[in-house]
Amino acid sequence: MLRGPSPRQVKGLMKTKKVAIVGASGYSGEELVRLLLSHPHVELAVVTSRQYAGQTLARIFPRFANHPKSKTIRFTEPNAEQLAKQAGVVFLALPHGVAAEYAAPLIQHGNVVIDLSADFRVKNAAVYKEFYGHDHPAPDLLSQAVYGLPEIYREQIKKTSLVASPGCYPTSILLPVIPLLKAKLINPRSIIADSLSGVSGAGRKAELDYLFVECNESVRPYGVPKHRHLSEIEQEISFAAGTAVTIQFTPHLIPVNRGILTTLYLAPTEHFNDAAGAASLGERVAACYHAAYPDSESAFVRLLEGKALPDTKNVVGTNVIEIAWRLDARTGRLIVMSAEDNLIKGASGQAVQSMNILCGFPETAGLV
Amino acid sequence: MLRGPSPRQVKGLMKTKKVAIVGASGYSGEELVRLLLSHPHVELAVVTSRQYAGQTLARIFPRFANHPKSKTIRFTEPNAEQLAKQAGVVFLALPHGVAAEYAAPLIQHGNVVIDLSADFRVKNAAVYKEFYGHDHPAPDLLSQAVYGLPEIYREQIKKTSLVASPGCYPTSILLPVIPLLKAKLINPRSIIADSLSGVSGAGRKAELDYLFVECNESVRPYGVPKHRHLSEIEQEISFAAGTAVTIQFTPHLIPVNRGILTTLYLAPTEHFNDAAGAASLGERVAACYHAAYPDSESAFVRLLEGKALPDTKNVVGTNVIEIAWRLDARTGRLIVMSAEDNLIKGASGQAVQSMNILCGFPETAGLV
Amino acid sequence: MLRGPSPRQVKGLMKTKKVAIVGASGYSGEELVRLLLSHPHVELAVVTSRQYAGQTLARIFPRFANHPKSKTIRFTEPNAEQLAKQAGVVFLALPHGVAAEYAAPLIQHGNVVIDLSADFRVKNAAVYKEFYGHDHPAPDLLSQAVYGLPEIYREQIKKTSLVASPGCYPTSILLPVIPLLKAKLINPRSIIADSLSGVSGAGRKAELDYLFVECNESVRPYGVPKHRHLSEIEQEISFAAGTAVTIQFTPHLIPVNRGILTTLYLAPTEHFNDAAGAASLGERVAACYHAAYPDSESAFVRLLEGKALPDTKNVVGTNVIEIAWRLDARTGRLIVMSAEDNLIKGASGQAVQSMNILCGFPETAGLV
Amino acid sequence: MLRGPSPRQVKGLMKTKKVAIVGASGYSGEELVRLLLSHPHVELAVVTSRQYAGQTLARIFPRFANHPKSKTIRFTEPNAEQLAKQAGVVFLALPHGVAAEYAAPLIQHGNVVIDLSADFRVKNAAVYKEFYGHDHPAPDLLSQAVYGLPEIYREQIKKTSLVASPGCYPTSILLPVIPLLKAKLINPRSIIADSLSGVSGAGRKAELDYLFVECNESVRPYGVPKHRHLSEIEQEISFAAGTAVTIQFTPHLIPVNRGILTTLYLAPTEHFNDAAGAASLGERVAACYHAAYPDSESAFVRLLEGKALPDTKNVVGTNVIEIAWRLDARTGRLIVMSAEDNLIKGASGQAVQSMNILCGFPETAGLV
Repeated sequence: MLRGPSPRQVKGLMKTKKVAIVGASGYSGEELVRLLLSHPHVELAVVTSRQYAGQTLARIFPRFANHPKSKTIRFTEPNAEQLAKQAGVVFLALPHGVAAEYAAPLIQHGNVVIDLSADFRVKNAAVYKEFYGHDHPAPDLLSQAVYGLPEIYREQIKKTSLVASPGCYPTSILLPVIPLLKAKLINPRSIIADSLSGVSGAGRKAELDYLFVECNESVRPYGVPKHRHLSEIEQEISFAAGTAVTIQFTPHLIPVNRGILTTLYLAPTEHFNDAAGAASLGERVAACYHAAYPDSESAFVRLLEGKALPDTKNVVGTNVIEIAWRLDARTGRLIVMSAEDNLIKGASGQAVQSMNILCGFPETAGLV
Repeated sequence: MLRGPSPRQVKGLMKTKKVAIVGASGYSGEELVRLLLSHPHVELAVVTSRQYAGQTLARIFPRFANHPKSKTIRFTEPNAEQLAKQAGVVFLALPHGVAAEYAAPLIQHGNVVIDLSADFRVKNAAVYKEFYGHDHPAPDLLSQAVYGLPEIYREQIKKTSLVASPGCYPTSILLPVIPLLKAKLINPRSIIADSLSGVSGAGRKAELDYLFVECNESVRPYGVPKHRHLSEIEQEISFAAGTAVTIQFTPHLIPVNRGILTTLYLAPTEHFNDAAGAASLGERVAACYHAAYPDSESAFVRLLEGKALPDTKNVVGTNVIEIAWRLDARTGRLIVMSAEDNLIKGASGQAVQSMNILCGFPETAGLV
Repeated sequence: MLRGPSPRQVKGLMKTKKVAIVGASGYSGEELVRLLLSHPHVELAVVTSRQYAGQTLARIFPRFANHPKSKTIRFTEPNAEQLAKQAGVVFLALPHGVAAEYAAPLIQHGNVVIDLSADFRVKNAAVYKEFYGHDHPAPDLLSQAVYGLPEIYREQIKKTSLVASPGCYPTSILLPVIPLLKAKLINPRSIIADSLSGVSGAGRKAELDYLFVECNESVRPYGVPKHRHLSEIEQEISFAAGTAVTIQFTPHLIPVNRGILTTLYLAPTEHFNDAAGAASLGERVAACYHAAYPDSESAFVRLLEGKALPDTKNVVGTNVIEIAWRLDARTGRLIVMSAEDNLIKGASGQAVQSMNILCGFPETAGLV
Repeated sequence: MLRGPSPRQVKGLMKTKKVAIVGASGYSGEELVRLLLSHPHVELAVVTSRQYAGQTLARIFPRFANHPKSKTIRFTEPNAEQLAKQAGVVFLALPHGVAAEYAAPLIQHGNVVIDLSADFRVKNAAVYKEFYGHDHPAPDLLSQAVYGLPEIYREQIKKTSLVASPGCYPTSILLPVIPLLKAKLINPRSIIADSLSGVSGAGRKAELDYLFVECNESVRPYGVPKHRHLSEIEQEISFAAGTAVTIQFTPHLIPVNRGILTTLYLAPTEHFNDAAGAASLGERVAACYHAAYPDSESAFVRLLEGKALPDTKNVVGTNVIEIAWRLDARTGRLIVMSAEDNLIKGASGQAVQSMNILCGFPETAGLV
């Protein structure tokens, strides 16, 4: 389904990379452990966690306890110097602000760093400070970081040593929106993104708001109107549009473990007000998406046909994002909907996908 | 909390009305049974259901089995002529198309009819046919029906014999939007309504799509882009705006039993692009809402203050709709969010509220 | 449905009691607030919470925000001396060990205390220490406390000033088992109780184990084999059996907000091994239950007939316990199943029921 | 983790088997499709479904739509003659009674049949009739069928052509109980099995009882006291005990998609009444389990150590069954608890495990 191996890929296939996960105790970290344990081209060499240091993977994550290596791998205290020697590729599954502290020495030492935090996603340190409330901890590294959205930055990922893996909401919004912006099919100022997220998106934190009884039989918006993820969403949308863009974004918390469903309200640049106009623009939208995400290249983008609409249950547990669209002849708007697993395509799976590209492995290795 | 009793109210308080529910086997019907069994001013005299005829309330709805009357009231076959004699007020909890067949003879006989179906909500029979796919079954009655949104049509409800009780989605959209339109605070063409509904909204129907396994751990849009409820939503929005309005509306199915959360994206008529502008407009929006829904009159509209945002778990089981709003200085938009119980404020509770008004009972009777 | 009022009841009906809730921030406390706010014969005068002192009920419990008093009642710091003056009846919704500290001065002052903690349930201070790990804080009061299972101790509750309201699991086990033991229909040594509880049973505590993601799509036993509630269960079973009894009890955590379903495996004293024997014993079991819980007296015990089996969804939100039984001709065992709302019949509703009895109100006041 | 390949295994590894699934439209069928699509040693050649004939796998099961073969494999009408030629191994995921009709001609033609229905589980046609209500459709085949519990019948499965794959409840009960019976550690007449099942166990059937709203926030027993699965459970328990055994079994429906949690109450043959006695017997129980399910052989049985107890969330999505046990010094009973995924270890995964053994593939192929 993907293009033939590049020379770097061939070389990659010939040896097994040692990888480390720093901060593996959260939901994204756990999912990374699962993916890397069974990845055909890497060896999970180091897993760190302050909280669980000394314990085995099998004990902390019983669901992996049948994997042969789960009883031998023990969490260690994180130590950047040691990590630099123990693994070629280091995944950082740490809170923002903390991740950058590890990234700097690792990069200096020549390691590949794939950071799942927000630390290297925003190019502009002032924007980072505006949204995250503190000075950027390693501004010098910002220029070399590549935003790890493989379908958009595949070529750049191949050449970098520092991948800033995107957030879960941004992935669900950017993959549907960027092709339309690049093709000038929509007005960049019109974008409204309404997102529904499962509770694992809040992380494994002992807070009252995320107790079962507080979330079950509850549906609620939060972080209205200025969620932190807007910083990276608007940056990437502005790049695609070629102009500075501000968007509307409302996240909601929904009682499912996993999954993000995003509904996008967009104003096409081409006006239409009848079924014929809708059908004609619909063809251009379809062509735009198929050109941006050809089956031969983008194994993880599923463009829905016919009457099908995205449903999180069809993507949970996979690295796939589903995308569907409708032209509304009554309002002249384009509605685009996406569904993804927030912990996989929205976090750990996408990080592995970037590693695959960067290391020359097949892009889908360990992800199907 | 409500104004003193009118002469009609005083008269109403002096006697107990006999009421009937036609088609009480669905979720809205069950909720109506619950509300009317414990209502202080009515006697639930007749409950019909083809499916359950001959059986007691206690047997079909075990949760009411401790109510003394649940063992004596039995479902009967529906018969309009008999109903006309047995009850002064008849609630129709029937599918659209069927409800009108019962309404006509009852109205003719002088009964009060409160219809929970869509049959009398849309004033224009052609629009009804466009959205419901068949000719209107009783177009002559359309002119006398009052759209049963008590906070908007309280005075008209007092004088009618035929209440067309609104749909669940329309209630969650219209109560937040109508005051803003009447005050000309928003551009009517800008309205985008994104709604999330619990599964009871689909009714008690044995269909694969609504099985536990198909809904649990699933989030999905449906009926995009032209849901039937648009017919009544746009009618009422057009009335409030004084001009024909088309809106954008996307419903989603969420794994909760009950509750609708609606997020509205609105363009204010007054532009602003900074915090001061947002604050100033925010005050006008707040004033508009407090004038439209004063505490002294609108016991069931809860305008949220401070940082609170709507959460369906705070309204489920009640006839309350929560409304909150935010001005976004970055985009210049007004975001309004509402939460309601789709079976109570979105169906049966609102129907009882209309009955209370129509019969001269206190508006909150049996609803708190 | 209940017997006519006693002289104490008549007196009770003539005035409104002032009541206080100490420690109202948990789930049971919240449910008590709900019940007492709308109780016809009491005035909720004081609500304490260290955590929420100074805030209104409306702010902390938005679901009650439409009750007129929710905006005027503010949480206060708990103070036994003041409480003694402010309210005649004081409900303690505090952790075990802490409750007794408040009970002692209140009892001394002449107040009625209804304690929802475990502090006064176990008569034997040594057993208390064995199960709760610390010395009993007020052993002198143990003799005057009445175990607040109204269907069993109705007469004693009328005469006490200190009610030890039972735990949620004990209620679901004792009400089905005690009549059978008193009638010598089952062997006391045979009792096995397998219970399934909703997550609210764990309380409103910020612990990882009770996060939505950890509970949803999870079913698990816990506290095997010696749960603390065994101390009170075995005490009451021993009283009913007239001999010291040890039972088997396994609690499980189930992803629902509320509800306990208990399945009891019992060995009848009368052997049977065919359908006729089962039917004959079945009649005696039915007669035993109907004699113990006559409709005219026990409004909250629902004895299921025909093919019906208990279902938590039929009792959640009510003070009802459902009980059904089956004789198994293949094994000679009696299977009894019960369902209740752990926060109502298993906690706050039952406490209010005890207060009603103690104060001479109708037993069902405020509970239907 | 498993023993080295047998000659048959080596041969098996050298070629790819063609397999068919008859009746793939239910939840077990869907899970079989998932497992067989990615199995390293088989080719999924035929998938039948009356309902979906002509449609692709990708369309009916969107979650597999990214598998390359999902767009080329189409459901066909089931036809035993054609199946006999198209596939060497045929899985029957059909209702009981129907499965046998397909099995007979396939076996005659020399195919391997792995039947997920109940048709060949019970050796005695009279018992089959007692529990399933109709004559056995192919009694002549009963003697050659092997009950497909690989951990118990591994050697027999290697030599048969007809595997009767066990039911979900039986698996959760038999794997914990059989070793104890064989070692004479428990009294066979004492067995009580209390099981909690996710809703997928009811199948993909459009029935009111399994609607989201009827199952969510509900916990209920059903089929008390004589569930059909007792026929196979008691048969296998009797084989292990060497005497005819009747057991107690109560299934409950729990609001999770997948998973069975079984709690077993057992009377040890060796009496004990203190911690020392419990510890001593505990060692014998542990030794019994480790001998029955050695790590080197039984990759899918996870014997929990320390304080860990089974939790369905740790096994869902895997072919693993978790087992833990506790000796209760207070009651002298042995409590054993198990957790499995009802659709995998309880159905499709176990069927694939049997196929692996029968075909000489590694037992874990396609299952980790």
